[in-house]
Amino acid sequence: MKLIKNLTNSETSTGRIFDRIIYALILLSLLLFALDTLPEAERFKTWLLWSEIVIVAIFTFEYVLRTIDRGLKYTFSFFGMIDLLAILPFYVSLGVVDLRSIRILRLLRLLRMAKLQRYGSAWRRIWLAFGDIKEELAVYFGLIVVLIYLASVGIYYCEHDAQPEAFCSVFHAMWWSICTLTTVGYGDVYPVTFAGRLLTFVMLILGLSVVAVPSGLLASAMVKGPRQGEERRE
Amino acid sequence: MKLIKNLTNSETSTGRIFDRIIYALILLSLLLFALDTLPEAERFKTWLLWSEIVIVAIFTFEYVLRTIDRGLKYTFSFFGMIDLLAILPFYVSLGVVDLRSIRILRLLRLLRMAKLQRYGSAWRRIWLAFGDIKEELAVYFGLIVVLIYLASVGIYYCEHDAQPEAFCSVFHAMWWSICTLTTVGYGDVYPVTFAGRLLTFVMLILGLSVVAVPSGLLASAMVKGPRQGEERRE
Amino acid sequence: MKLIKNLTNSETSTGRIFDRIIYALILLSLLLFALDTLPEAERFKTWLLWSEIVIVAIFTFEYVLRTIDRGLKYTFSFFGMIDLLAILPFYVSLGVVDLRSIRILRLLRLLRMAKLQRYGSAWRRIWLAFGDIKEELAVYFGLIVVLIYLASVGIYYCEHDAQPEAFCSVFHAMWWSICTLTTVGYGDVYPVTFAGRLLTFVMLILGLSVVAVPSGLLASAMVKGPRQGEERRE
Amino acid sequence: MKLIKNLTNSETSTGRIFDRIIYALILLSLLLFALDTLPEAERFKTWLLWSEIVIVAIFTFEYVLRTIDRGLKYTFSFFGMIDLLAILPFYVSLGVVDLRSIRILRLLRLLRMAKLQRYGSAWRRIWLAFGDIKEELAVYFGLIVVLIYLASVGIYYCEHDAQPEAFCSVFHAMWWSICTLTTVGYGDVYPVTFAGRLLTFVMLILGLSVVAVPSGLLASAMVKGPRQGEERRE
Repeated sequence: MKLIKNLTNSETSTGRIFDRIIYALILLSLLLFALDTLPEAERFKTWLLWSEIVIVAIFTFEYVLRTIDRGLKYTFSFFGMIDLLAILPFYVSLGVVDLRSIRILRLLRLLRMAKLQRYGSAWRRIWLAFGDIKEELAVYFGLIVVLIYLASVGIYYCEHDAQPEAFCSVFHAMWWSICTLTTVGYGDVYPVTFAGRLLTFVMLILGLSVVAVPSGLLASAMVKGPRQGEERRE
Repeated sequence: MKLIKNLTNSETSTGRIFDRIIYALILLSLLLFALDTLPEAERFKTWLLWSEIVIVAIFTFEYVLRTIDRGLKYTFSFFGMIDLLAILPFYVSLGVVDLRSIRILRLLRLLRMAKLQRYGSAWRRIWLAFGDIKEELAVYFGLIVVLIYLASVGIYYCEHDAQPEAFCSVFHAMWWSICTLTTVGYGDVYPVTFAGRLLTFVMLILGLSVVAVPSGLLASAMVKGPRQGEERRE
Repeated sequence: MKLIKNLTNSETSTGRIFDRIIYALILLSLLLFALDTLPEAERFKTWLLWSEIVIVAIFTFEYVLRTIDRGLKYTFSFFGMIDLLAILPFYVSLGVVDLRSIRILRLLRLLRMAKLQRYGSAWRRIWLAFGDIKEELAVYFGLIVVLIYLASVGIYYCEHDAQPEAFCSVFHAMWWSICTLTTVGYGDVYPVTFAGRLLTFVMLILGLSVVAVPSGLLASAMVKGPRQGEERRE
Repeated sequence: MKLIKNLTNSETSTGRIFDRIIYALILLSLLLFALDTLPEAERFKTWLLWSEIVIVAIFTFEYVLRTIDRGLKYTFSFFGMIDLLAILPFYVSLGVVDLRSIRILRLLRLLRMAKLQRYGSAWRRIWLAFGDIKEELAVYFGLIVVLIYLASVGIYYCEHDAQPEAFCSVFHAMWWSICTLTTVGYGDVYPVTFAGRLLTFVMLILGLSVVAVPSGLLASAMVKGPRQGEERRE
């Protein structure tokens, strides 16, 4: 019983090692999930299946341990349900249905890592900074959506006649707006008319100062934020 | 009469609900406008037309309500004229002319949302920050235009002989400058000569530090600004 | 004589108007220079030539005015020599040689605009901020060059065998490095091997935090700078 | 003996000049390394070989000088071993094996430049700023990796059926995620389905605010950092 207590208590050294093994298995499980989609995966099918069985066995063992230790309080907690979701698809898919894609839910288990002691203060600072500027972020998100809509309508009128295929509706034009405003610029659609290019220029000059602001805000608030936050509270 | 007062006064709970319905209809109207451009829209033509009629009817109802409530003061106010512009095209186009594109003016009605209580302080902070740095922004806008002109002339001389099609004039080269300086990089035009590529490198190293500054300025000023603003005023 | 004094003195209202006309003519002259490269320019050749003659005439008139007013002190000043360079090519090219490209030197006359009263404080703040961080900028410029060199050598070894055309030497690989690190990404060259793509990922994660820092620095320093600058001086 | 002392002591003027020659030779050596990969290099083979011999001779001379001056303490120091690595490949490859690629190790010698007096304070400020935010950077690096994984899995399900070639596995989808989140956007792979494009939009809106934050953080911390660092320590 003491061993179970130690294993599930991340403050003891045994618990910390157990936690790290679980984290490593989560990452391994996500890697296996990606490997499974490779066209060459057919050859390793048996190997992949066995790894999956071993991982799920360990996760089930961990789930049982925690349930023994904390009972129903754990079963109905947020992390308890995530842990269940991480192993359930395997048992259900033993039957007929293929629920492999739900395995991606294991990614949610990574949330636990947020509890990692070491980066606690960094997380808190990021969170405080985010709290400080969440209203500005909401305003900027609204501005970005309006800008994309406006740009899409504008480019639709400029380019529809020249490129009826690429800009066949405002929704198709939106794809261009998103690619351009975020400066990704795949090059699958681009304006060719003079009006369209002028619009692109104006939109970019205005848009870059909008799209890039949120990350700058977050960065500035993170360096500056905590103190300002304290001032506000006082 | 009291109901009218309540509906048009966004400080009562009835008014707030009415406001939200209007905002939702504005968004719906903009969505319908985009849907209308889809090639598949032909099939839903009747459905789209009826939605349009219903929306305009509600907007007209709202316009009449507000006119009754506030009279000429509303008619000649900024928002009053925008509200009129949002419904007028429909009535005019009932005749022969097709003024559907003017429907885009309804986007202006979104400006009203700026009045939304909740984000008021965020808007004010953005505005204060913008005020703090508007001169720097003007200088930077000038620098960007000069940089684009210079880069266009430079690349024209470097690439005109190698790619007479893509770089057939300084204006065509400007399209390249805009795409490159904003780092969109569609890939429809790019330098192939050594001189052109060297120029691209130099331009980008100089240019990135110019083009990306405005958004960084805005972000820094927003986190820092209000306080600085108060200091200046004192 | 008093008129000359007024015209060349940008503190009188006559001088300010004269200055603005000159600025407008500089911009017009730069526009004509770009128009001249258009393939359609042949048709407007006479029109373009006459505009050029008129502009140079006015610039010569201005040059003579300023020489009368301030004499040799003006002739050998920085702006005096720029003003001469802006008109000289025209007179020289009246002979045989075609020196039209030197007309681009007129762009330098735009430097005068820096004297514009209104944006003086913004310029000074930009300049102070630049002074505050010029050593960091130098270090970052060095880091960027080293990063580009390293990435070029790395990608050359990864991709040379798979794409001997696109990555035929370290110098060709440098073009890829520049396009990728600045996130322009034209798409004319890109890695196809697994090693090359892994290198791209590592380089981008490291590189983005280097390439984007200078503009962030400038922005932060501009909002923060003046005060810090004063502190240092004290 | 006094000359040796002066040459290897970078605080005397003779030593400074010697240092600069060595730095110039390091840069020249790196340039020659790149030139060597050019297809046209065959013609200059002898010339390149002789330059290499001369440079290695001078480097060997420097190495011997420093060994005489400081003995074993230098041989086993960090810079001593880098200096040895910079010349050893040449002597080893005089035999059969071709170790030219190891010449790239000479780049490490550039680390010495970090000792350059002038930029010392800038380096320290960058380092202090980096220290201030290294935990946030670690958190952000984690977030970026999770985001890339999630986006890759998402786009794989959206696009696998439409483009089985480009998105044939989660790993191939990762290449797209990296190119898109960093806004490089080569254009070799891009989503074509509606679901894929919607995912791209959501990912970019979330992702840009994550990917661009580290550089903004570094910039803000650099302008702000030193003081904050002192406060923390006190």
